Amino acid sequence: MRVPDRTRPDRPRRGPHSNRHHADILLTELRIRPRCTRCPAWRGCVFGFASAAGGRFGGRVTPSPTPPAADRLARQIRFIVEVDKLKEIFRQTVLINSRRAENDAEHSWHLCLIVITLAEHANRPPLDVLRVLKMLILHDLVEIDAGDTFAYDTKAMADQHAREAVAADRIFGLLPPDQAREFRALWDEFEARLTPEAKFAAAVDRFQPMLLNCRTEGAAWQRHGVARDRVLARNAHVAEGSTALWAYAQKMIEDTVAAGHLAV
Amino acid sequence: MRVPDRTRPDRPRRGPHSNRHHADILLTELRIRPRCTRCPAWRGCVFGFASAAGGRFGGRVTPSPTPPAADRLARQIRFIVEVDKLKEIFRQTVLINSRRAENDAEHSWHLCLIVITLAEHANRPPLDVLRVLKMLILHDLVEIDAGDTFAYDTKAMADQHAREAVAADRIFGLLPPDQAREFRALWDEFEARLTPEAKFAAAVDRFQPMLLNCRTEGAAWQRHGVARDRVLARNAHVAEGSTALWAYAQKMIEDTVAAGHLAV
Repeated sequence: MRVPDRTRPDRPRRGPHSNRHHADILLTELRIRPRCTRCPAWRGCVFGFASAAGGRFGGRVTPSPTPPAADRLARQIRFIVEVDKLKEIFRQTVLINSRRAENDAEHSWHLCLIVITLAEHANRPPLDVLRVLKMLILHDLVEIDAGDTFAYDTKAMADQHAREAVAADRIFGLLPPDQAREFRALWDEFEARLTPEAKFAAAVDRFQPMLLNCRTEGAAWQRHGVARDRVLARNAHVAEGSTALWAYAQKMIEDTVAAGHLAV
Repeated sequence: MRVPDRTRPDRPRRGPHSNRHHADILLTELRIRPRCTRCPAWRGCVFGFASAAGGRFGGRVTPSPTPPAADRLARQIRFIVEVDKLKEIFRQTVLINSRRAENDAEHSWHLCLIVITLAEHANRPPLDVLRVLKMLILHDLVEIDAGDTFAYDTKAMADQHAREAVAADRIFGLLPPDQAREFRALWDEFEARLTPEAKFAAAVDRFQPMLLNCRTEGAAWQRHGVARDRVLARNAHVAEGSTALWAYAQKMIEDTVAAGHLAV
């Protein structure tokens, strides 16, 4: 299999858009694409060769024929059943009325609703709203394995992307290969935050917990001793997706400070 | 204000697609559209006249100018805050792992995920997937006021649509008028189940609880004494959206019967 050369001298040496980063994405794609149907240790079966661990056949693996429709649907259902676990991943934000912790599935639904309500406020409308929704439906699935990382927990954030990338391999890998690639690409796009759609999705993903915090007397911020400047710094990229939403958020934060629910 | 004639002789005299039903929708639109900014009892202000209760001005109300952007965003945020309550509306279905009751927000997210995974199995692809997602993001908001109606509770189902239509007036009415109309039209489309998109959305809305029931030893069915024939009858319209999903569901139901988790 020929590996396309995506090396670009203008990319940074490290970090999210380095050549190394893109090489990792490519490796993930290769790991998913030529899945060997007979080799149980297929995750090691990079570049279409048999797994070194299994070693049941030594040469190049012939790409398996398209699986029958029933097998395809069965794999899709396995994925749908697996992600039921997202409803059990609890966040630091609490609900406005009962004040119990919100979970990732509820959060993801709320983001989708916000997108269809506020898409007109994106910096670069018209957005491809369908792609924004797909990103947000999928964006937290990795937390089924990697857990929720609180937005102000700098220690946990250090290896967050690495932990989540492993989770993405496993969870999207449950799907038929073409869908695994499509969903993984959507998650990568969301994480990279380069397209107008990803910028708006990320803006909404930051705006919603701020809104819930401001409507619950700063519950999560108070509990973790987060002050105004950290809130402003952590969420400033909302402006990349929507300056209107960021202006609203800044006003909301100042009102919460004025009400004594967020420390200065 | 000229009322367009939507009377059609081919419509049934009563029920969801009667002329009466469409007249009700039209009245709702009129009630939302010319909202009077000075009259507090604006819900009575049909056809642009002042409310009989308020009576502060007697003539035809001049349509208010488009509200400034800040007011528009404030109304949208009020809607987004209000619908946080969907996370507190619990259903009869239980989650696969913890076996606690699922809520409407989690359910709505799961349906969206199922749509982007299984859209290829719709009877009439390619669907307008964005419209299917919008319908499913919004479809249960009415339950904030009307409560969840269990799919096998025939008594509660008798006045379900009427209760939910009142809820739709209030909840979508929080939005700016153009969005209130758009979201209400999506909810009406979902309820009417006439378009390929609505048929597929409804199919997924029935498929997901069946899937969770089958994966939890028929928990909700057992608790309410629901037997196989009622499950088959209540969910048969899945086939209108996707014969592939209905075939899968029938097999799943038979397996659940064979395992002794669903009465014959």
